[in-house]
Amino acid sequence: MATPSRVPRRTKGERTREGILRVAVDLASVEGLEGLSIGRLADELKMSKSGLFAHFGSKQELQVATVEMAREIFKEHVIGPALEQPPGMPRLWHLCDRWLNHVEAKVFAGGCFFTAASFEFDSRPGPVRDVIVDAMQQWLTTLTRAVEEAKRAKHMKGDVNAGEFALEIYSMAVGSHWAQQLLGQEKALANARGMILARIRSEATPNCPALKSGSKQK
Amino acid sequence: MATPSRVPRRTKGERTREGILRVAVDLASVEGLEGLSIGRLADELKMSKSGLFAHFGSKQELQVATVEMAREIFKEHVIGPALEQPPGMPRLWHLCDRWLNHVEAKVFAGGCFFTAASFEFDSRPGPVRDVIVDAMQQWLTTLTRAVEEAKRAKHMKGDVNAGEFALEIYSMAVGSHWAQQLLGQEKALANARGMILARIRSEATPNCPALKSGSKQK
Repeated sequence: MATPSRVPRRTKGERTREGILRVAVDLASVEGLEGLSIGRLADELKMSKSGLFAHFGSKQELQVATVEMAREIFKEHVIGPALEQPPGMPRLWHLCDRWLNHVEAKVFAGGCFFTAASFEFDSRPGPVRDVIVDAMQQWLTTLTRAVEEAKRAKHMKGDVNAGEFALEIYSMAVGSHWAQQLLGQEKALANARGMILARIRSEATPNCPALKSGSKQK
Repeated sequence: MATPSRVPRRTKGERTREGILRVAVDLASVEGLEGLSIGRLADELKMSKSGLFAHFGSKQELQVATVEMAREIFKEHVIGPALEQPPGMPRLWHLCDRWLNHVEAKVFAGGCFFTAASFEFDSRPGPVRDVIVDAMQQWLTTLTRAVEEAKRAKHMKGDVNAGEFALEIYSMAVGSHWAQQLLGQEKALANARGMILARIRSEATPNCPALKSGSKQK
C-alpha cells in the first residue's frame, strides 16, 4: 500500500488515503485521538510505518486528517440528509434526529467522535484542537441557522434566542451521551430524543408541521 | 513535610494529607487527572517522592484520594449550603445556582473538576473511574431528589419526570462548560444560569416562591 513516487491516477492515492483515514476514525473513536499514532495505525492496518509516513508526515498531521475525515462522515450521515428537508422546524428536527441516529447506529465505532475528541483536547492547544473547535463551531452554526430558519418560517416563536437554543439542544445530546457512556444509562439517548423533541415543540407555533421521530428505537 | 514514622497526633497527619490533596485537586483540575503522578505532585509541593509515597502508595491511590477530596470540596461549597434551604424549588434552584457559582469562582483552579474528570475517564475502567461514576451518580441523585421535593411541595408540576429533568439541568451546565472551555464563549456560564432558571420556571406552579439568582454576575 506504499504510495509510488509517481502517482499515475491521483484518485487511487486519494482512495487509499481515505481508506486509511476511515480506519483511523474508528480507532480514534474507541481508543481516543491522543492514542492515535502512526505506529498504532500501522499495526491496525498491517501496513509498514514508512508506508503510512508517505501519507502523513507526523502523528499530528494524522490526527488533523482524522478529524477532517470524521467531519466528512458526519456531513454525509447527518447534515446532508437533513438539508434535503425544507427550511423550518422539519429541518431543525431532522438535524437532531439524525445526529442521535448516527450515535445509536455506531457510524463511529466508539459512539460520538466529536464529543469525545472535544473533551479530550479542550485543554491541549494546537492544530488538532483548532480543527476540532472549527468542526464544533460549524455544527453549532448549522443548528443556530436551522433555528433562525424555523423562526423565519413562523414555525417557531419569534422570541427564541437562536444561539442559546442551539446550545441547549446540543447540551441535551452531550449530557445524554455522558449518562450513557459513564453512568451506563442505556436509555439515555432514546430519552434525549424525547427531551429534545419536547423542548422543540414547546417553542413551536400552530403553523409548525407535525414532527416525527425517524428512529427505529421508538 | 515527610511523615514521621510515629505520628504523635493523628490529626496532624490528616491535616498534612488534606493539604497535599487540596494541591492535587487544583493540579488535576488544570492538567488532568491522568497527568497526576506522585512525581508531578512532589515537584509541585517541593516534597520528596518518598514523603508522598508514605501518604499514597501508588499513582492510582493518589488519584482516587484526589477525587474523594474534590467531592468533599464540592459538598462544602455546593451541596451543604443548598441543603440549608427548605425543600422545594428554592433548594433545587440553590443547588443549580451554587453549582454554577463554584465554577465561576474557580473553587477548582481549572473550572469544573468533575466534568473534566468524567470525560477523561469515561473509557478507562478501574478504581479511578469507579469513584468518579459514584460521585456523579450521587450528584444526579441529589438533583433528582430536589426535583421530587419540589413536586411534593407543589412548587413544580406533578407530571415532570424527576430523573429526566435532573439530567436536562445537568446537561445544560455541562454544555455551557464545554462552550466556555472549548469555544471560548465567555458568557456561556452566565447564559446557563438564565437557561436553567427559565427551564425551572417553565415547570413551576403558582405556589412556587420567587427564585432569585445569587450570582454577582447578573
